[in-house]
Amino acid sequence: MLVFIQHSGNANFLYSVGVDFEGAYHIFSLKNEEEIGNKLNVLIVPDMEGERAKKESKVRNVVTYSEIGYESGKSFEECLLNYTLNKGAKKVLIPEDFPAKLAIFFKSNIDVSVVKSPISKLRMIKSKWEVEMIRESCLACVKAFKFLTKLLRRKRRCEELRELVELKLFSWGYLAENTIIASGVRSYEPHWIGYGEIEEHLVVDIFPKSRRHGYFGDFTRTIIFSDAKDELKDMLRVCVEAKNYAEKIAKPGIMAKEIHDAVCDIIESYGYSTLRKKCSEGFIHSTGHGVGLEVHEEPRIFNNEDILKEGMVFTIEPGIYLKKVGGVRVEDTVVLRKNNVEILTPCEDFPKLEGI
Amino acid sequence: MLVFIQHSGNANFLYSVGVDFEGAYHIFSLKNEEEIGNKLNVLIVPDMEGERAKKESKVRNVVTYSEIGYESGKSFEECLLNYTLNKGAKKVLIPEDFPAKLAIFFKSNIDVSVVKSPISKLRMIKSKWEVEMIRESCLACVKAFKFLTKLLRRKRRCEELRELVELKLFSWGYLAENTIIASGVRSYEPHWIGYGEIEEHLVVDIFPKSRRHGYFGDFTRTIIFSDAKDELKDMLRVCVEAKNYAEKIAKPGIMAKEIHDAVCDIIESYGYSTLRKKCSEGFIHSTGHGVGLEVHEEPRIFNNEDILKEGMVFTIEPGIYLKKVGGVRVEDTVVLRKNNVEILTPCEDFPKLEGI
Repeated sequence: MLVFIQHSGNANFLYSVGVDFEGAYHIFSLKNEEEIGNKLNVLIVPDMEGERAKKESKVRNVVTYSEIGYESGKSFEECLLNYTLNKGAKKVLIPEDFPAKLAIFFKSNIDVSVVKSPISKLRMIKSKWEVEMIRESCLACVKAFKFLTKLLRRKRRCEELRELVELKLFSWGYLAENTIIASGVRSYEPHWIGYGEIEEHLVVDIFPKSRRHGYFGDFTRTIIFSDAKDELKDMLRVCVEAKNYAEKIAKPGIMAKEIHDAVCDIIESYGYSTLRKKCSEGFIHSTGHGVGLEVHEEPRIFNNEDILKEGMVFTIEPGIYLKKVGGVRVEDTVVLRKNNVEILTPCEDFPKLEGI
Repeated sequence: MLVFIQHSGNANFLYSVGVDFEGAYHIFSLKNEEEIGNKLNVLIVPDMEGERAKKESKVRNVVTYSEIGYESGKSFEECLLNYTLNKGAKKVLIPEDFPAKLAIFFKSNIDVSVVKSPISKLRMIKSKWEVEMIRESCLACVKAFKFLTKLLRRKRRCEELRELVELKLFSWGYLAENTIIASGVRSYEPHWIGYGEIEEHLVVDIFPKSRRHGYFGDFTRTIIFSDAKDELKDMLRVCVEAKNYAEKIAKPGIMAKEIHDAVCDIIESYGYSTLRKKCSEGFIHSTGHGVGLEVHEEPRIFNNEDILKEGMVFTIEPGIYLKKVGGVRVEDTVVLRKNNVEILTPCEDFPKLEGI
């Protein structure tokens, strides 16, 4: 029998087990390297978690550490291996991030291959319910952005705005960490979260996780003040044009790289560089990424040939970053429908500010 | 040269690099399997993080993916291996949770051993500054507990109290998740977070992380209402006696198991079972665990022979869990001083409630 073993503490485990337990392992049979089978489906948890796992886990068959023969002084790796062999495993597949200690011990005792998890593949296509959960988190992003624009005074500092926005999101049931609220030249580093006074523009990238269901939203808008330099305004116009064009052409059957190329074509047509040309300024990241139980997950929207399918949820987020000017970015989360995309983060591309 | 490679996204990386980057690797030389050397200390990050890493990381030597020869279409594993070999590595040590894909690729090309990270060992002894950060988080626990006791009405539900306590902690700069506020018989599962109406008692286990510096606090008190059954009151008295005795005997030089045994002796002397006897009811977990950048870290206070040292911070948390009665627990976080322990979570063991 071919089996897959996954460890706890990650989104794949949470997706298939429904709840997380420190130190737990989920073993299930596979029909082949891609498809999940139905011969074996068992969750192994520390003794202390046995009762809770039986009540809260989606996996019906819960086995405790003691039940696989583990006790103080024994090797846990050996107990887990023996249990797996006794269940009839002839070959074990493990995910790329499986813990090395167990992986190497298993590999010296049974045929082991490291593969992309079949659960990651399942997670790429969202169910109707999942799309609604992501929509909820996306609408929280937009609402938080509107809340921020009402607080916005040029004299406020980025870190102060971040604190207020993250606290508001928490009170709505969302956890937002490292929310990017960045101004000034250093915003040319795409992941710099921003500190200090607000200068000519403000990049606001909000990606909260629902504390109820665990699904993320992801959303960015750039506010450019009227007295800002023309270059910032031009950069944002280009990004918005690229985003909107990508959203127009995206549909099931298209390759990820077709979207990325369309975005790069537009950005390059205005004289900015992109990663197609090995640059350190310009559009220096990918066009987007899947959004779900992780804020960055499959599919990647980059120079890859993955075919996009109905039910995939991902971001489209062109940005331009210049060392002497700063960075701008605009980002929607979208879901791929039968013939087009539906935007889950409805918000104007050039936010209007009242009274500023 | 002997080198150690650690991946990002965990407390050891955060401790030694000072900041986290998705997809980063930290390579440093070792004098021997235990001690860090000074020949090599380099941080490898995705290109997009290069600038930020140079500014924010404690590691001076920052190298980007491109600089190790990685580009689209190439194998990242191979680039990282070649870079490591070129730097003169003859043997590579990796931590137990290192990602399997890289671990197995390296192992087929160079001598690799999986070891307990030397960084985990460093982290066990806290600096003066670290103790103050943990104290801050511990005092936030106690303050949050006092806040909860003021909100406490028997008609309130556990989930409502959890929401209010976690929001209050967030407003103080702390992230608390899965705060245990549990009542009724199901509290016999130590990690059940609690739902529903408050019955005869309430277990409150608060373990927030500071959003500023990342250090945790950990603290539990059990409130028993005056009309509760005598058994619950008796169980709590036993746990408090065991905790206070453990805090009296703990000092540098003692073995972890001496503390655990002392706690078990007291609990068993009152007729309750402990894990020394393979039980599924009674004191069914260890006496404690280290607290720092993780809420559960080294040292474990269990049946292990680790010698405790000055500067270690850990919990002492006896609990008794009976399937037909429920669970109770009392927990302090303490720091080991030259001759004794200092309690970082000062709070009465039998909390008094006003007006209930």
